[in-house]
Amino acid sequence: MKNVNLLKQVDFIKEIDELKYIQRKTRLFNSDRHENDAEHSWHLAMMTIVLAEHSNVPVDVLKVLKMVLIHDIVEIDAGDTFIYDTQKNHTNTREELIAAKRIFGLLPQEQADEFIAVWEEFEECSTNEAKFARAMDRFEPLLQNTSNDGGTWVEFDVNYQKVYDKKKAIKNGSTIVWDYAEGLINESVDRGILKK
Amino acid sequence: MKNVNLLKQVDFIKEIDELKYIQRKTRLFNSDRHENDAEHSWHLAMMTIVLAEHSNVPVDVLKVLKMVLIHDIVEIDAGDTFIYDTQKNHTNTREELIAAKRIFGLLPQEQADEFIAVWEEFEECSTNEAKFARAMDRFEPLLQNTSNDGGTWVEFDVNYQKVYDKKKAIKNGSTIVWDYAEGLINESVDRGILKK
Repeated sequence: MKNVNLLKQVDFIKEIDELKYIQRKTRLFNSDRHENDAEHSWHLAMMTIVLAEHSNVPVDVLKVLKMVLIHDIVEIDAGDTFIYDTQKNHTNTREELIAAKRIFGLLPQEQADEFIAVWEEFEECSTNEAKFARAMDRFEPLLQNTSNDGGTWVEFDVNYQKVYDKKKAIKNGSTIVWDYAEGLINESVDRGILKK
Repeated sequence: MKNVNLLKQVDFIKEIDELKYIQRKTRLFNSDRHENDAEHSWHLAMMTIVLAEHSNVPVDVLKVLKMVLIHDIVEIDAGDTFIYDTQKNHTNTREELIAAKRIFGLLPQEQADEFIAVWEEFEECSTNEAKFARAMDRFEPLLQNTSNDGGTWVEFDVNYQKVYDKKKAIKNGSTIVWDYAEGLINESVDRGILKK
């Protein structure tokens, strides 16, 4: 007797293995090696557990974990869009919505609906959980770029203002993390790895 | 004004990047590429969210997630031990305990104590959460090996009985997942990718 839900879930578990092949623009800490989306998602999950105490308001940590673990799964179909890409909107493209429906749609209906809702909540970024998850997503590459002498900022000629505008979203999740992040950005200008 | 906890936490966040370099024996699904510990940990976290409904008893999903996300971090210092290695005990070596104390010890004291306790709970495998986490850790490579025409079983000449003995731990976490897993093991014998 086969469990119908389990068969669908196993299909999903196999499908999302593809996330390990999606390369990000950013590189590992002190490294030339590009990070992939699965590694990135794991790192955000670890940061969530470790830094949750600094959230501006108490958050449902399990919900934040679900967000960061699944937030990039749509990129299996839609690909990674560089955050400083000026040609293409980073979030909530039509392509990503189609991807969410196809990939999460492999799951049993109720679970598919839940995962799509969690992903949309992350994208819309209006709840406290989404704001904290977004803060983690902005903070990791900042740490990576400062460890890599500017990393993607230097590689793609991204200036202080652009970085500041993207990173200030950290403040909506945690002013404590933002204070630290802002210090790192200013230090990066002083170090000459970020152009003002 | 620097937040002392945050500085320690950032050191930890940087340190655990090393998990992305720890290669497992198993390979990605339908692939020749070895999986690393960070990718593996992400995949177990996803499996936990997706399969928690099949746990033999209701579990604290947040606790299980913490377990699977951190369970291999000690391997940054202690290295990956192949589960079918006959020379070396797979779990709870002295080396791993020293690693846990060093790496989790980068965190603020209270958090370090919590992480070491969660890791030890996973290793001892006596609570419901640990049993479910262990089930996920046994189930993923089974799916990978069957997708890779036997994978590490063929590569390292591991027979049915050894596989069965390791995999039956899945039953303690979920009899539903175990029924499916046992079917896969038997099918593997029929397919000639696992020797009886």
